Amino acid sequence: MRTDIAILGFGVVGAGTAKVLDMNAKEIALRTGTEIYVKRILDLRDFPDSPYADRVTHDADEVFGDKDIKIAVETIGGAKIAYEYTKRALSSGITVVTSNKELVSTHGVELLKLAKENGCQYLFEAAVGGGIPIIRPLYRCLAANKVVRIAGIVNGTTNYILTQMKVAGISFEEALAQAQKNGFAEANPAADIDGIDAQRKLSILSTIALDGTYVAPSTINAQGISEITTDDIKFASDIDCELKLIALFENREGSKPAAYVAPTYVSRESLIASVEGVFNAIMVEGNALGESLYYGQGAGAVPTASAVCGDILEAAAGNVMPDSRLWEDKGDAIASFDNVKASIVVRAPELPVTAFAEYDVEYLSGAVIVKSIAHKDIEPLVSGIPGAKWMHYLK
Amino acid sequence: MRTDIAILGFGVVGAGTAKVLDMNAKEIALRTGTEIYVKRILDLRDFPDSPYADRVTHDADEVFGDKDIKIAVETIGGAKIAYEYTKRALSSGITVVTSNKELVSTHGVELLKLAKENGCQYLFEAAVGGGIPIIRPLYRCLAANKVVRIAGIVNGTTNYILTQMKVAGISFEEALAQAQKNGFAEANPAADIDGIDAQRKLSILSTIALDGTYVAPSTINAQGISEITTDDIKFASDIDCELKLIALFENREGSKPAAYVAPTYVSRESLIASVEGVFNAIMVEGNALGESLYYGQGAGAVPTASAVCGDILEAAAGNVMPDSRLWEDKGDAIASFDNVKASIVVRAPELPVTAFAEYDVEYLSGAVIVKSIAHKDIEPLVSGIPGAKWMHYLK
Repeated sequence: MRTDIAILGFGVVGAGTAKVLDMNAKEIALRTGTEIYVKRILDLRDFPDSPYADRVTHDADEVFGDKDIKIAVETIGGAKIAYEYTKRALSSGITVVTSNKELVSTHGVELLKLAKENGCQYLFEAAVGGGIPIIRPLYRCLAANKVVRIAGIVNGTTNYILTQMKVAGISFEEALAQAQKNGFAEANPAADIDGIDAQRKLSILSTIALDGTYVAPSTINAQGISEITTDDIKFASDIDCELKLIALFENREGSKPAAYVAPTYVSRESLIASVEGVFNAIMVEGNALGESLYYGQGAGAVPTASAVCGDILEAAAGNVMPDSRLWEDKGDAIASFDNVKASIVVRAPELPVTAFAEYDVEYLSGAVIVKSIAHKDIEPLVSGIPGAKWMHYLK
Repeated sequence: MRTDIAILGFGVVGAGTAKVLDMNAKEIALRTGTEIYVKRILDLRDFPDSPYADRVTHDADEVFGDKDIKIAVETIGGAKIAYEYTKRALSSGITVVTSNKELVSTHGVELLKLAKENGCQYLFEAAVGGGIPIIRPLYRCLAANKVVRIAGIVNGTTNYILTQMKVAGISFEEALAQAQKNGFAEANPAADIDGIDAQRKLSILSTIALDGTYVAPSTINAQGISEITTDDIKFASDIDCELKLIALFENREGSKPAAYVAPTYVSRESLIASVEGVFNAIMVEGNALGESLYYGQGAGAVPTASAVCGDILEAAAGNVMPDSRLWEDKGDAIASFDNVKASIVVRAPELPVTAFAEYDVEYLSGAVIVKSIAHKDIEPLVSGIPGAKWMHYLK
């Protein structure tokens, strides 16, 4: 048997997908009982030196009008052309597999519905955590759990920068320049360093954790790392922590769900504190499973292609996601950031005990952990203490 | 819709399964579109105080003769009664879900075949890593990868003992007694401390990594931790390692696959070095994905039940594992332990440079890492060095 697929956008991940399908063709055929054949590659460019040169087309009709093509891999990125092509594919009954977190987080509600209406699927294991299996474990393996917390390092660029700042003792600007030189940050790094990429991924994870109640990226407060100083990094060691950009989702009994992205002091007792460089790690707490962690390469052509191919093979094997996987925009999925209670660390030359009288606190050398404080109450508290600075805290 | 199930053996995991199904009944019904109803519980005992008292039966015919029962949860353990009941259930077309690593690793070939012949399934996500999703990610998410290495801490009892030996500076015997007192080791701890439990789990993982070429537990060399001394533990710190009981599978280009269980100095650069207490962690390296890690609670009633329930829900939703999942006993799946090359650490009061002339080595303070040496060559090498002791090494 043969399953014909198309790749839309033959960039890093698109070409990586063709490479993985080719390098493990024997195993894939054995496991799925079908050969996966890349019939068409849709791109604006030509690739005369590629072994796939003869399959490249610039004409979308050749892809979407081809009844043999059952699966389209959307690795264009962004939410413009990718959006149009994804709608066209799904409307034609072609299952779409993607690594495009921007598109999934922005238009997932509509695209999942469109897939359902046309008897096909919209799959995006690769959109969060690159190659790390996380979407399918959440849907399948944790199906008997209520997800009470997700805490993830979901952006490799910022984790690389924070690791370099620590290891080499350099400033944010120097570390960013180094990341750009080494290919770990883009020329325009805003989406990564401002936490936008993490915000999109958290939107997807939170929506799944809430059984499809859509958490729009725009409703997730995101703070990036561009204002992190070498002092902030050094201080982490003083309190036995590592400074990480954490995407946090919480859904505790008695509170409205919360989701935000923030630089966070993570206690070294937690395994995610040890995650360095471009690696990603996502801690998921289920009410039955307890804490579990998924770790691996969060980006890169071949690792991300590994996740894309996992989805392709599921679709080729005819394994269908349940209807409960549809998303619904109810408009008010998470609590307002101001009202969300967080754990924070406050440091200052002098920390007056009286300032914290009404809070449950833990004193460290030169710092105080305030265990639960609403975001709106943080500035009033901290502004009253000369030279004080605060940051989120995660145990 | 309602799906009727039976639980065979109402012990820790069996009762935990009923508990998880009950506590998350609303979510489960929403996600799978079916209510999971525990119709029968088969056990020798009665449970008059249990809310399930009226469903308990001692008569196997009441379970296997009941056409309504589609899924049986086998949480009896062992490979005797559990084996008979599993065969009976599968022969009746009833899907069996289990946490029984002994049975899966011993009779998996036959039981998977029997399931296939009778149009049902034999599912065992909970048999390895307790609640940690590992079996399904291996089958599904890494479907486009060739698995080149698995390195796992798969036994919580031994990891707890090793952690206690380190933290409290106590002997193996003291740590074992403490583990027994705290319920983390059984009265007869042999299966855990001798590496038999890890051997069974590694048999399952290796067989899956080899696409169903069965690796019998008896062919896996297993060394336990009962001879580990406090000196061995202390020495780990000297070389920036942690001592862990590691279940290792390797399948590199040009070598026959290898699988063995051994106490191992794990470099602190590796995330699994940080895994403490009863937690489990499994590092899987795929040829596309690179390294990935799965971490969580490897035992315990409710975490293990979380994995059991994941399988129940998959079966209830009608998601079927592919035929490639069948196992086949070809009799010669892995290399003879003597011929397998390993990395080891040799320590001795004096380490003569000449002894290692023919090996690729790295000198540490008071120790040498021999990067690749066949097991059969280790004793001849080490016995020539006065006071020398060796251990496996993992970077």
